Amino acid sequence: MQWIDLRSDTVTQPTAEMRAVMVEAVVGDDVYGEDPTVQRLQAMSAERLGKEAGLFVPSGTMGNLIGVLAHCGRGDEVIMGSLAHTFLFEAGGVAALGGVHPHTLPNLPDGTIALEDIRLAVRDANNPHYPTSRLIVLENTHNRCGGVAVPVEFMLAVKEIADANGLKMHLDGARIFNAETELGVAAAELAQPFDSVTFCLSKGLCAPVGSVLCGSKPFIQQALRLRKMLGGGMRQAGILAAAGIIALEKMTLRLGEDHRRAAELGDLLASVDGLRVEKKAHATNMVFVNLDESIQGSAGEIAGRLKSLGVLASPTGARQFRLVLHYWISDADVKATAQAFRQALSV
Amino acid sequence: MQWIDLRSDTVTQPTAEMRAVMVEAVVGDDVYGEDPTVQRLQAMSAERLGKEAGLFVPSGTMGNLIGVLAHCGRGDEVIMGSLAHTFLFEAGGVAALGGVHPHTLPNLPDGTIALEDIRLAVRDANNPHYPTSRLIVLENTHNRCGGVAVPVEFMLAVKEIADANGLKMHLDGARIFNAETELGVAAAELAQPFDSVTFCLSKGLCAPVGSVLCGSKPFIQQALRLRKMLGGGMRQAGILAAAGIIALEKMTLRLGEDHRRAAELGDLLASVDGLRVEKKAHATNMVFVNLDESIQGSAGEIAGRLKSLGVLASPTGARQFRLVLHYWISDADVKATAQAFRQALSV
Amino acid sequence: MQWIDLRSDTVTQPTAEMRAVMVEAVVGDDVYGEDPTVQRLQAMSAERLGKEAGLFVPSGTMGNLIGVLAHCGRGDEVIMGSLAHTFLFEAGGVAALGGVHPHTLPNLPDGTIALEDIRLAVRDANNPHYPTSRLIVLENTHNRCGGVAVPVEFMLAVKEIADANGLKMHLDGARIFNAETELGVAAAELAQPFDSVTFCLSKGLCAPVGSVLCGSKPFIQQALRLRKMLGGGMRQAGILAAAGIIALEKMTLRLGEDHRRAAELGDLLASVDGLRVEKKAHATNMVFVNLDESIQGSAGEIAGRLKSLGVLASPTGARQFRLVLHYWISDADVKATAQAFRQALSV
Amino acid sequence: MQWIDLRSDTVTQPTAEMRAVMVEAVVGDDVYGEDPTVQRLQAMSAERLGKEAGLFVPSGTMGNLIGVLAHCGRGDEVIMGSLAHTFLFEAGGVAALGGVHPHTLPNLPDGTIALEDIRLAVRDANNPHYPTSRLIVLENTHNRCGGVAVPVEFMLAVKEIADANGLKMHLDGARIFNAETELGVAAAELAQPFDSVTFCLSKGLCAPVGSVLCGSKPFIQQALRLRKMLGGGMRQAGILAAAGIIALEKMTLRLGEDHRRAAELGDLLASVDGLRVEKKAHATNMVFVNLDESIQGSAGEIAGRLKSLGVLASPTGARQFRLVLHYWISDADVKATAQAFRQALSV
Repeated sequence: MQWIDLRSDTVTQPTAEMRAVMVEAVVGDDVYGEDPTVQRLQAMSAERLGKEAGLFVPSGTMGNLIGVLAHCGRGDEVIMGSLAHTFLFEAGGVAALGGVHPHTLPNLPDGTIALEDIRLAVRDANNPHYPTSRLIVLENTHNRCGGVAVPVEFMLAVKEIADANGLKMHLDGARIFNAETELGVAAAELAQPFDSVTFCLSKGLCAPVGSVLCGSKPFIQQALRLRKMLGGGMRQAGILAAAGIIALEKMTLRLGEDHRRAAELGDLLASVDGLRVEKKAHATNMVFVNLDESIQGSAGEIAGRLKSLGVLASPTGARQFRLVLHYWISDADVKATAQAFRQALSV
Repeated sequence: MQWIDLRSDTVTQPTAEMRAVMVEAVVGDDVYGEDPTVQRLQAMSAERLGKEAGLFVPSGTMGNLIGVLAHCGRGDEVIMGSLAHTFLFEAGGVAALGGVHPHTLPNLPDGTIALEDIRLAVRDANNPHYPTSRLIVLENTHNRCGGVAVPVEFMLAVKEIADANGLKMHLDGARIFNAETELGVAAAELAQPFDSVTFCLSKGLCAPVGSVLCGSKPFIQQALRLRKMLGGGMRQAGILAAAGIIALEKMTLRLGEDHRRAAELGDLLASVDGLRVEKKAHATNMVFVNLDESIQGSAGEIAGRLKSLGVLASPTGARQFRLVLHYWISDADVKATAQAFRQALSV
Repeated sequence: MQWIDLRSDTVTQPTAEMRAVMVEAVVGDDVYGEDPTVQRLQAMSAERLGKEAGLFVPSGTMGNLIGVLAHCGRGDEVIMGSLAHTFLFEAGGVAALGGVHPHTLPNLPDGTIALEDIRLAVRDANNPHYPTSRLIVLENTHNRCGGVAVPVEFMLAVKEIADANGLKMHLDGARIFNAETELGVAAAELAQPFDSVTFCLSKGLCAPVGSVLCGSKPFIQQALRLRKMLGGGMRQAGILAAAGIIALEKMTLRLGEDHRRAAELGDLLASVDGLRVEKKAHATNMVFVNLDESIQGSAGEIAGRLKSLGVLASPTGARQFRLVLHYWISDADVKATAQAFRQALSV
Repeated sequence: MQWIDLRSDTVTQPTAEMRAVMVEAVVGDDVYGEDPTVQRLQAMSAERLGKEAGLFVPSGTMGNLIGVLAHCGRGDEVIMGSLAHTFLFEAGGVAALGGVHPHTLPNLPDGTIALEDIRLAVRDANNPHYPTSRLIVLENTHNRCGGVAVPVEFMLAVKEIADANGLKMHLDGARIFNAETELGVAAAELAQPFDSVTFCLSKGLCAPVGSVLCGSKPFIQQALRLRKMLGGGMRQAGILAAAGIIALEKMTLRLGEDHRRAAELGDLLASVDGLRVEKKAHATNMVFVNLDESIQGSAGEIAGRLKSLGVLASPTGARQFRLVLHYWISDADVKATAQAFRQALSV
């Protein structure tokens, strides 16, 4: 059975073109800095994000972890949203491994944080009762706030607070090209207020493995040591970087298709009895669907029925699904998904 | 000039009786477990808190830090209120030194946390994306929520959630005897739902230095190693413990006086033009006073004027004071304070 | 120019066969445990090492780091050799990230440690002045001791001490198949005394990226969370695992060739005026060569001349080279290397 | 029974004069920086050690821990002797709590380390495989090397290496005044090559509790935050500081008496059949005594017999005792001790 897999865009397989370039990739020992394909991907990434340098890492989690650890010493504090991926889904690594104190503030539904909350969260640097405020981490698109793109105006407003207090800024831009596509603002401009940014080559961009952390040259120099320490130094990583180059060059340009299909899927599902689709400004490739009171089964039960109909969907709550569109989901799949929901709910 | 010092109850000097017992204290090398006065204080503390064993530590901060580190390994998560002393004022030590991930939840004005928030904050132990939920830290009396005593019913309700999820509970009971006094519930009963509890001998109890961490014997055994690691092992600490014994035996019985004076000071200040006094259920020895719109000066400026009148008061915001009653504040001081405020505001 | 690259076996390119399988690899999202090629590699690795389960990681450094962090909590102590790769070349990660205290003991020239030193290094578990002894890390083959294979008898003797003291054992088996080949003892038997073992698919086995950590099922369960925390969770990692399967199945069987060539290169170099070749029992694919007093240039200078002759060689000291044989070094390369040394030294 | 307690100088009781000043001490809240007696002790200590500023801490362990944590970030490396108190007896805190990687080098019997070993231990700062060398910790007098005073010439030679490599230096000067006394070199001169130094007011100086960490003003500013984080901030600590002032002013001047008695005890024991007394240059207040082959009982058994004769002595090995002289051991006690050993060994 060929699944319609809407659980996440992390399930994306590499494209045929990616496989073809991987088999031919010119590689070297990247721990010695001698892999030309990795070097090329890093340079392209830095340019695309408007930063001086890039570093290839095995995952977005490692990119964010290195970002936080490079900016923050033991006992420093990082401010982020209560729904930040780094807070929720990265196993607490910033505290566990880095001794960095997370200071979470309520995320608003549009992926932002109240500016006043950020201002009040910054600690008086002279009071020894406090950890030292050092870094603000933001996310774009914001996964747990519905995959919404966050406008650059918010980022710039936070940057003002950061500057006024000598704080650094890191962007978890795992899906920054979805934000670029939705907002019509170049990734470099979205990343401009940040000292560092991570983006993923996997997810919607379909590369099998890898993310790139970008920042200034001295920052990336520090990041290199942290990557080694964490065990993220890989040898002939050019195999992966070759696919990453396709991801960056070509796949970033087609994300609008996923957004269009997400909107269409949302519309189709909105017409299904028992479903309430969340409509958000700046939505991208995710659809959040809630079961209304007329439905007795839980999201888990419905997911089971959908699976038997060939559709994989992840509950993100007792009564909620997140459906993620990506390269391997066609227009026909969108229609089939709506049909499957209708059938699953009519049982 | 003899100050009326209302900044905190941490400013309390040892009483004459404490000084007298310190000079005579029988002491030994407590790192060898040979200081009889420390042993006696620890045993008395454990009994008073209803726990098996106690450990003398140099500060409440160290008591809480050891509590968290003994319960939590690297990468475990501790749930606590966003206004918890441990989160706000202990320099981020749980993350910085222990690799423990703080998961903060909004504190309600009465010092509690919504039970549903706690339930939702517990992580699925099988998902490797998550840190491991391990501990809930609560506080009684709750300093930043106005020094209010938190009823045992709330603690028991949280304990149910903890038990259902295999979590431990630690109580920051820096001022637990103020809670005992206000609620009319023995400290042992307040501490009963908790695996460990810290309380302070300084603050309202007037001992010059020290806190006691209480818990089960195996817990205290672990705590002993952590105290050594942190550098909290002291030699002839019986000098301090002697004062601590007076604090525990006698000073815990007179806190009602401070509470009465706090209420009286609140009433007096409420009648001062330009002041709004916060009235809270289960308030203890603290009075929170806000400047209303009619007052032009900031709390910092008013504090300066109060100082010139012999009254020391800490702003806890641009327009707010916290005034803390304690052993060294008499009925006459209460009246003088109200008078000083009236004078300072009428400038 | 086609280099004769003897700096390390980490420079090995993937073989044509590896490239061919990578392009065809069946993959899935390994963070969801759905990559069949990764699953197959992990199962094969576990079987080959005689353990219950395996975990694919991006590097040997991460394999060792996870091994230490899974066995040791914050403040535990790990005993290892003063020349252990984990101590020397893994950026101090066990302490930096894990709060684990390294206790190094002098490595003997054969890659072992005096058993009496190990016995004395184990701490009294009841004394709070001490960190808690928890783990012994050994290495086979031992890189900095000349790439020698360490006989299983030594491992068993250490295991006795470990058992007597309740310690765990981890093997840094980055090149365990070189030890298997040299000693004629199966990797599973070499790994048997250990609770966990890391081995590398890159290095002499030519896979582009990756190592496998093996151990019991509960250990690998813990390791999975740590891999996520460190950012070592990769998505469609089957691309890499496909090459790893070739590495494990086929490349492990041909290492004898590298050892034979290393011996031959050693013999050839021994006859070059000005060189002193170290001869060690159980040497494998590495040759250590010292410049004698008759040579004026430093190893760095000689390396420069060798490079101009097409030979890449790493100085491992002011007067020493380490030459590493691997798949991409032919018999002709061995002869050419000896010739290049002769020429470089006759300047 | 009045014990002759030679186990350590940590067992020293405060003198009558100390008790008298403690009862009268003028104190304040030292967390607010308002305890005049603590301020005075800190200023006197800084002056005596030739540093800008001092910080009162509850123990020597905390002084050393703060010293290391203030100089070293997460992942930095500290070089120290394999017999350093900080490595052996401080529970691994530098790694456990600070993520600092200890790099131990063999201690020579005179308390020094081979300079060449130190030179070789410094890491290449540009190689990401390495932790960053940051700090050298030395010890004077050197406890585990026999309590010997280490001449300043060695310290200066190490300082040259440190300077050449941009490393900081910290001195564990727990018993620095014993070194001052033995070498006839002022503590300030002994401490001069160091960026920071800890010394203890307890031990031979008889104060009940406390040590002082000294260094530059910015260093002490950092140390203040770390002390808070560790829980070493104490309130009316002037009680303890008052005794510390006597310790510093008066007790440092009488240590020669302890050294004389140590030498006399060594001579007396050397004449006891079955004992071999270690003679070391620059010995201070410690005598190390070994049981020779003629003695059948272990040190533990002999200790038991000594105890029944009123003498407390700690085995520091299966066949060795360390005997420590201090204020509370008189000439008569020295003779009685020799007599007790004779009796205990003649059984």
